[in-house]
Amino acid sequence: MKVHVGPVAQPELEAAVVAAGAELGSAADATALIWFGGEPERFAELDHPALEWVQLPSAGIEHWAAAGALREGVTFTSAAGAFAQTVAEHALGLMLAGARQMHLMARASKWSRPEGMRGVAGATVGIIGAGGIGGSLIELLRPFGVRVLAVNRSGKPVDGASATWRSDDVEGVRELLAESDFVVVAAPATAATARLIDAAALDRMKPGAWLVNVARGPLVDTEALVAALDAGRIGGAALDVTDPEPLPDGHPLFQHPRAIISPHTANPKSLMIPALARRVEENVRRRLAGEPLLGVVDRSAGY
Amino acid sequence: MKVHVGPVAQPELEAAVVAAGAELGSAADATALIWFGGEPERFAELDHPALEWVQLPSAGIEHWAAAGALREGVTFTSAAGAFAQTVAEHALGLMLAGARQMHLMARASKWSRPEGMRGVAGATVGIIGAGGIGGSLIELLRPFGVRVLAVNRSGKPVDGASATWRSDDVEGVRELLAESDFVVVAAPATAATARLIDAAALDRMKPGAWLVNVARGPLVDTEALVAALDAGRIGGAALDVTDPEPLPDGHPLFQHPRAIISPHTANPKSLMIPALARRVEENVRRRLAGEPLLGVVDRSAGY
Repeated sequence: MKVHVGPVAQPELEAAVVAAGAELGSAADATALIWFGGEPERFAELDHPALEWVQLPSAGIEHWAAAGALREGVTFTSAAGAFAQTVAEHALGLMLAGARQMHLMARASKWSRPEGMRGVAGATVGIIGAGGIGGSLIELLRPFGVRVLAVNRSGKPVDGASATWRSDDVEGVRELLAESDFVVVAAPATAATARLIDAAALDRMKPGAWLVNVARGPLVDTEALVAALDAGRIGGAALDVTDPEPLPDGHPLFQHPRAIISPHTANPKSLMIPALARRVEENVRRRLAGEPLLGVVDRSAGY
Repeated sequence: MKVHVGPVAQPELEAAVVAAGAELGSAADATALIWFGGEPERFAELDHPALEWVQLPSAGIEHWAAAGALREGVTFTSAAGAFAQTVAEHALGLMLAGARQMHLMARASKWSRPEGMRGVAGATVGIIGAGGIGGSLIELLRPFGVRVLAVNRSGKPVDGASATWRSDDVEGVRELLAESDFVVVAAPATAATARLIDAAALDRMKPGAWLVNVARGPLVDTEALVAALDAGRIGGAALDVTDPEPLPDGHPLFQHPRAIISPHTANPKSLMIPALARRVEENVRRRLAGEPLLGVVDRSAGY
């Protein structure tokens, strides 16, 4: 099997391909393509009839679907799960930063104690879209003695959660929103999850609770969120992803006393490449051994 | 046993006294005093010959020692350990905020990704003064798969640390400084720990490493720290305590691109009172049962 890394060459990913026992080849020769450094629109440049498998570099695939680049006859694998721990760590950082009002401290030029300090220990944490990232977050939260409420697509009980509801269980989602001190959004961006956190959802949240979004911007209705924050309806929002993204310069969410904007850095490049290289090595090894690949894209589900 | 809460009355602490089975009394009647809401200099106002035991509200006792208020013939107990988990949670929050550059994000008015993002997972964490807070921090860090290096007074191996050195083991402390991605200071403020982190210590730290101080300000040489941060010698510093404290308005550490100043809020009042009430209840119960009290002050050790 010949594997090409492109459209932009990436030495760590190429090393992973070789470490897994495959040979590097040109785009035209290769039956496997490790996509790196280009927009999905450029897929046609590297596509050819003998191409069998494409490893995508991100966990989300909505840009690929939107670009019509998920060609039939080719197996696509996303990097879903590969960055779960890195993103979960960031999510916990955002929870703690919000709980301890670190954004206000960071902005201060004098010694003044913010109001509204809370703890994560003993809190109730609701995870909407409890997949790989949610599972990693539950692991990180274990020593905090929190109560975890979860929502996922299947409703299959999530390990470490005291309750799990199906994402289409309206009452269950409402209970999660009403009970949680922290609502963490980690669901994939699909038609079903668009504006999942709208004005009504925000209104159901506990006063003082924090919303954390480490999934995709469109899952939260930005306008409704700004209104809820302005009104002090919830404690705050820590967003690694926004809608629109990037957020325009000077947007009210920047510098908002109840908001922390992290510019899509839950999975920063410095931590992403090593994690992606591990996933590439594992999937190339699996491909050579004829084992099932990790992260095979389900076009109908949208992830 | 009659117990007085003062000089300022505090209903939650009074409830804890009663819950433990003791009776509330006036300052003049009581043989036990739960100190709350006053400077140590005011101790003489509530002191009297029949007073046997004073429960102090803080983990550190240096202000009591400095005020000469630790009268012989009275047993003093500090609240050491009572706030360990709360402070450890804050320390982890500061580590994550620093690692993920959340202070820069909090200050931004536009979408721009900071450089120097790092992870806590897999890092080496050095804890100087690994007592109650250090132990709680090690618990919180367990799922991160970090390597912990510890320094304590006895050199007795710290649970969860891969190495423990005595605080007077100069080579050991140097090794901790040189190896750690995060150096967390959690030692009591004594004559021996003053300016423990001076220019030489900062110089031994790994480039890019973060210093976190959740102990007392005088353990870190502020001037040397500012110089190290200005020079980019270390990744950054997250300080819950400073020297001087409060830090004067507009001090260069506020808004420093490599610093996060948290104004002595690792143990905020909202979380402190419930934790202190639990400790008061436990110690009053122990006193009534003739069991050893928690946190008995050792005047010669200074904590």
